[in-house]
Amino acid sequence: MGASILSDFGAEILIPVCAVIGIAFSLVQWVLVSKVKLSPGRESVNNGSGAKNGYSDYLIEEEEGLNDHSVVLKCAEIQSAISEGATSFLFTEYQYVGIFMVAFAILIFLFLGSVEGFSSKSQPCTYDKSKICKPALATAAFSTISFLLGAITSVVSGFLGMKIATYANARTTLEARKGVGKAFITAFRSGAVMGFLLAANGLLVLYIAINLFKLYYGDDWSGLFEAITGYGLGGSSMALFGRVGGGIYTKAADVGADLVGKVERNIPEDDPRNPAVIADNVGDNVGDIAGMGSDLFGSYAESSCAALVVASISSFGINHELTPMLYPLIISSVGIIVCLITTLFATDFFEIKAVKEIEPSLKRQLIISTVLMTVGIGIVSWIALPSSFTIFNFGDQKAVKNWQLFLCVAVGLWAGLIIGFVTEYYTSNAYSPVQDVADSCRTGAATNVIFGLALGYKSCIIPIFAIAISIFVSFSFAAMYGIAVAALGMLSTIATGLAIDAYGPISDNAGGIAEMAGMSHRIRERTDALDAAGNTTAAIGKVSSCFRLSMTLISSFISVWHNKIVLPFQGFAIGSAALVSLALFGAFVSRAAISTVDVLTPKVFIGLLVGAMLPYWFSAMTMKSVGSAALKMVEEVRRQFNTIPGLMEGTTKPDYATCVKISTDASIKEMIPPGALVMLTPLVVGIFFGVETLSGVLAGSLVSGVQIAISASNTGGAWDNAKKYIEAGASPHAKSLGPKGSDPHKAAVIGDTIGDPLKDTSGPSLNILIKLMAVESLVFAPFFATHGGLLFKLF
Amino acid sequence: MGASILSDFGAEILIPVCAVIGIAFSLVQWVLVSKVKLSPGRESVNNGSGAKNGYSDYLIEEEEGLNDHSVVLKCAEIQSAISEGATSFLFTEYQYVGIFMVAFAILIFLFLGSVEGFSSKSQPCTYDKSKICKPALATAAFSTISFLLGAITSVVSGFLGMKIATYANARTTLEARKGVGKAFITAFRSGAVMGFLLAANGLLVLYIAINLFKLYYGDDWSGLFEAITGYGLGGSSMALFGRVGGGIYTKAADVGADLVGKVERNIPEDDPRNPAVIADNVGDNVGDIAGMGSDLFGSYAESSCAALVVASISSFGINHELTPMLYPLIISSVGIIVCLITTLFATDFFEIKAVKEIEPSLKRQLIISTVLMTVGIGIVSWIALPSSFTIFNFGDQKAVKNWQLFLCVAVGLWAGLIIGFVTEYYTSNAYSPVQDVADSCRTGAATNVIFGLALGYKSCIIPIFAIAISIFVSFSFAAMYGIAVAALGMLSTIATGLAIDAYGPISDNAGGIAEMAGMSHRIRERTDALDAAGNTTAAIGKVSSCFRLSMTLISSFISVWHNKIVLPFQGFAIGSAALVSLALFGAFVSRAAISTVDVLTPKVFIGLLVGAMLPYWFSAMTMKSVGSAALKMVEEVRRQFNTIPGLMEGTTKPDYATCVKISTDASIKEMIPPGALVMLTPLVVGIFFGVETLSGVLAGSLVSGVQIAISASNTGGAWDNAKKYIEAGASPHAKSLGPKGSDPHKAAVIGDTIGDPLKDTSGPSLNILIKLMAVESLVFAPFFATHGGLLFKLF
Repeated sequence: MGASILSDFGAEILIPVCAVIGIAFSLVQWVLVSKVKLSPGRESVNNGSGAKNGYSDYLIEEEEGLNDHSVVLKCAEIQSAISEGATSFLFTEYQYVGIFMVAFAILIFLFLGSVEGFSSKSQPCTYDKSKICKPALATAAFSTISFLLGAITSVVSGFLGMKIATYANARTTLEARKGVGKAFITAFRSGAVMGFLLAANGLLVLYIAINLFKLYYGDDWSGLFEAITGYGLGGSSMALFGRVGGGIYTKAADVGADLVGKVERNIPEDDPRNPAVIADNVGDNVGDIAGMGSDLFGSYAESSCAALVVASISSFGINHELTPMLYPLIISSVGIIVCLITTLFATDFFEIKAVKEIEPSLKRQLIISTVLMTVGIGIVSWIALPSSFTIFNFGDQKAVKNWQLFLCVAVGLWAGLIIGFVTEYYTSNAYSPVQDVADSCRTGAATNVIFGLALGYKSCIIPIFAIAISIFVSFSFAAMYGIAVAALGMLSTIATGLAIDAYGPISDNAGGIAEMAGMSHRIRERTDALDAAGNTTAAIGKVSSCFRLSMTLISSFISVWHNKIVLPFQGFAIGSAALVSLALFGAFVSRAAISTVDVLTPKVFIGLLVGAMLPYWFSAMTMKSVGSAALKMVEEVRRQFNTIPGLMEGTTKPDYATCVKISTDASIKEMIPPGALVMLTPLVVGIFFGVETLSGVLAGSLVSGVQIAISASNTGGAWDNAKKYIEAGASPHAKSLGPKGSDPHKAAVIGDTIGDPLKDTSGPSLNILIKLMAVESLVFAPFFATHGGLLFKLF
Repeated sequence: MGASILSDFGAEILIPVCAVIGIAFSLVQWVLVSKVKLSPGRESVNNGSGAKNGYSDYLIEEEEGLNDHSVVLKCAEIQSAISEGATSFLFTEYQYVGIFMVAFAILIFLFLGSVEGFSSKSQPCTYDKSKICKPALATAAFSTISFLLGAITSVVSGFLGMKIATYANARTTLEARKGVGKAFITAFRSGAVMGFLLAANGLLVLYIAINLFKLYYGDDWSGLFEAITGYGLGGSSMALFGRVGGGIYTKAADVGADLVGKVERNIPEDDPRNPAVIADNVGDNVGDIAGMGSDLFGSYAESSCAALVVASISSFGINHELTPMLYPLIISSVGIIVCLITTLFATDFFEIKAVKEIEPSLKRQLIISTVLMTVGIGIVSWIALPSSFTIFNFGDQKAVKNWQLFLCVAVGLWAGLIIGFVTEYYTSNAYSPVQDVADSCRTGAATNVIFGLALGYKSCIIPIFAIAISIFVSFSFAAMYGIAVAALGMLSTIATGLAIDAYGPISDNAGGIAEMAGMSHRIRERTDALDAAGNTTAAIGKVSSCFRLSMTLISSFISVWHNKIVLPFQGFAIGSAALVSLALFGAFVSRAAISTVDVLTPKVFIGLLVGAMLPYWFSAMTMKSVGSAALKMVEEVRRQFNTIPGLMEGTTKPDYATCVKISTDASIKEMIPPGALVMLTPLVVGIFFGVETLSGVLAGSLVSGVQIAISASNTGGAWDNAKKYIEAGASPHAKSLGPKGSDPHKAAVIGDTIGDPLKDTSGPSLNILIKLMAVESLVFAPFFATHGGLLFKLF
């Protein structure tokens, strides 16, 4: 056994220090971005003079003799319109979600408190009757607090992300005048601000919460980490509404704007004459940025909570070894430092000089962070873990060496990289799959759709095998703790992942602003190139996210089952909520109980079947919502084109506000049914059918949902890039399909429009569906085990 | 307990008598269809005279003054071209599949024979050491024989179906001149010929095989019914190639013909100038008819085998009570009689007078057959079962009353009806879902596709709940035997189901022939109306088929596990292949072993995950195949239009043969990879990963595949009917979207084209994927249990 090299005090210092470094780094990046002035300042004084305005590049405007002053002003104006729209939407959204959060917090308190009948007396621990554990009521109270904490952190993460993105988009546009490299750095740095802020913030809040809760819980670690799981639930449930609401908002506006503008009126994307154009750009920020920020924060919170809960029932939980107990958080801390170094490779060590260097540069980020992180994990595993320790696995004890746990984390990390590359292969227009899809546009939209759907289906194969192998390897080495840390391994580079993810919508918006401000088409070409690279990386992010989620889920899923197994052993009496994780140990060791979720029992099987259906139900809701909202948007845009004189000529301004309102109203209204489906399913199943059926539902929705999520993301990404491939016309093959407006291009636009809700609404929301149901089950597990399964109890 | 009312001798007589009645009835129907003369006979003598040609209706040609004589000749000519094309394709297909069948038969013999090391000595039975059971070698030999028997019966079923359909299509066209009622009766009667022939034939062959095998097996019923499972495997594997090969054939031709003809050249569907038109019509017969015939025969064979295997380990298996043992076959026998009466309601008791009566009439068929069958099941359960008997369920004994088993069969039957109505609601253009999809065509193809996909996803919800409830109810009453008979309950009305299913493609072809023969558009309208009703019923058939398959699967799946459980208990020694079902009894009772397929073990979980991915992989393959083959077809059709002078003007005939060849070559080549995926997966997983992972794969592919299959069928059906809704223009709303050639109509055509491979290739093939993997696992179970799991044995 032996102790770990890193002292408890060292671990207690290391984590907050790394978090603070991350926050400081993000502030530095923010300062660098803010150096691009949005008010006509020093740079524009030089306007027209031909001087080098302090940089070594000429501005395109200078070359083309456009008025720089008015361009900058216009960009600033558009930016503030987008920022205002996004802020006002998010505030509306948060009002509705806030009500839900309060109601759900009360529910958590009541349900969990009822486990011991709201008794405030401490109980003997289940795992060791000689010890005293905190009452269920305390766990209920602390779970509620951590739930609210998670929800608030998630909201703040999303909101800050949106603020940064809307701060950065016009700046990226302006930098694009100086060259693609400068634009890239601005967009990427802004992404990094968000990435580091969120990662460091999530870690810090969690760390502080653990330390504060410890003041009450003292030695009752099982109760402590049980209560902490609420943090994951809070983060994820906010993420659900953020993703779904934001996703409907952005795609309703996008699809509506494209259908009338691009298809009917034949005006370019993001043309300022299009009434839905502001709504479209607002949507990118509330959906892709704020939604994604909440989403990734939720993943991070859940993974960490799952790993901590499982760790609390290992030998370090029992023996109160703090450093190895905090191993998951130390991994995340080191991840921040690794990502910091990685970011410098994109912004400082190398310089982007041409469009074709963008994608390799982003890809390099993934490789560098993975390689460095492997070293980092190695060091952490060496210093923070004892050379050998014990994991408890359904009645067995399993001795794990520290190098084995290193391999678990590493297998997760590297499987993530492989999945990233496969996704890139299927969604980047540099490879044959997307080119084949583009080629199929020759015979029209129908073949484009058939090929695109087939591509998405096919792209599931390797990722699923990679996930399956990771599960198997990590489970073999360290049972469910291995799976939990494998998920965390992938998440350890979250800051870089977030930076890359945020980079995409920022570039997309930058292009929109260039178009709306009437800037040169050369600028649009540059931002489009940034965006095309962003599409691929976005798909990578989404698929990797699937991976992380499924790993997280599996671990939390297993934790649920730990609870389930112990609690029935209490004879379904009023169980102690405090026994949730550590309690397992005693129960397992003393009773050698083997618990199973048996597919052959009809209870489980029907759960599996219905669970596998849920992603379809959910997708149907969100896609239909996007479709209906888009139809309304189309009607409004058509109405404006038909009734506002001078709109097509560009002499009158369209009524942007009405379109913003349509998107807002639609998304607020339409996010409720899918949200309710996800939040209520575990409650209904748990209460009426009990934990066995619930386990079936979770497993079914995981295995079915992962596939739909991967295929939806990749199909959508491939269609988008097939369209961009034709538009860019960079190869003879691509030229033969174009130019814009040709029949193959029209077919490609149809594919792109279909892909929008798939890749930006239903696909990414499915991830949340899967993990949210799992973490919700985890939090409510003691309640279900005590009071659940009413229907089967009746018959 | 007590004996059953029906004597063994009575049961032995009842089954073949019902089968013979079914065959006789189908011959009578055939005679009635053949009364429509395809040579210019008595009817055409009256041509032009205005006489009533023996019927009370005037022919449309007579009213419109067209030359009846040449029309009849032309129809006959086209019919023989279609029939020849279909025959030649099927023969080519059967050659390739034949080679595969022989190879696979050898594999079965070798694998199953190796279980006891090819020993030809009888062994003591596992369930009762005092008895002697037949050696594994015998089971290997008889399994091989029954596999070949199933394969041949399946081939014959498909081929006969195709012959009947190509015999009937031109006759339906000619009858459409006399009115929609006459055309309906002809099409429906032809469907009935196929339905009754297949149902009765399948029953008779199975019955004879059981009786012949019994001559060798004597009292060793477990060995007997184990060997019979090969019949299901043979039927299903032929069905796989039939469905996939036929599906690719038909949709390559259909999509290719539509893309150039309808979209580019603006000529009507089935226009004789289109070079791919004959290939398209041939495709309907080889894909929708021959493929479907093999498929449904496979379902029937598998359900019956699963029920028999499970029954052989119940108390009647042990006590050798023949009548209750044959309960599954008696249900099927009574089903034939019930369907016979039901058919008379469509053809004799009521007469169709208007287009709007067609759909209600088909729906009535479903209701009448279900109601009558409920009575039939009641009677059979009363006379063929003892009032109480014992089922063995994983170590428990379960006493089942005969009325409980009646409820199991009935719940399957009625759940099927509910699923049918839900499917109808989602795919018929009489209801709002399809009308909404049609409406979304206003804003173009993209919204049409989004709404269509959402509709398909949504349509999974109720069927999945219906399946879940049936599983739960039937399992609660009679464990896995309950599930097996619930599946059989649904299949009991197979003759009517097949008649309705076959009716669709026959009507479709009839329309094609009318168009090609240059007949009046009023005739085309009538056949289109027949076809639209057929689309809905086809979707009902496909979804019901999903249901049946999943029930079948579950029962066979459970049977697989029976084997697995016993064999490991033999210490993984060379087990006796003869122990497969009855053996369980002894093992269970004596050891009270509880066997589980535990989702929480990584072996099972990775199987579940990979299994859920397989339907996506398979769909990607089949859709890509259709896409590529369609692209080739498009190029050929374009080439002919461009290079053959006078083709567009109708003065020169196109080169139909080249198009037929393209479809044939593509489907033969492309059916191999998906076929290999399905056939090899259970073998690879079983041999390398063992039975636990395999069980995960089966469960995963079931729960994920059912959803994709339902949504693909319904999405495709809805798009097809949305297009027909716009074309028919029967309501003010529909009129506002039309006419043919309008923008919404063009968008609807794109949706229809995308739906083609979904509803006719990948969707229906998925059913076969699911059940084939299960029955294959069942057949090879003794081998996997003895020699499987190599990879885990190594580590």
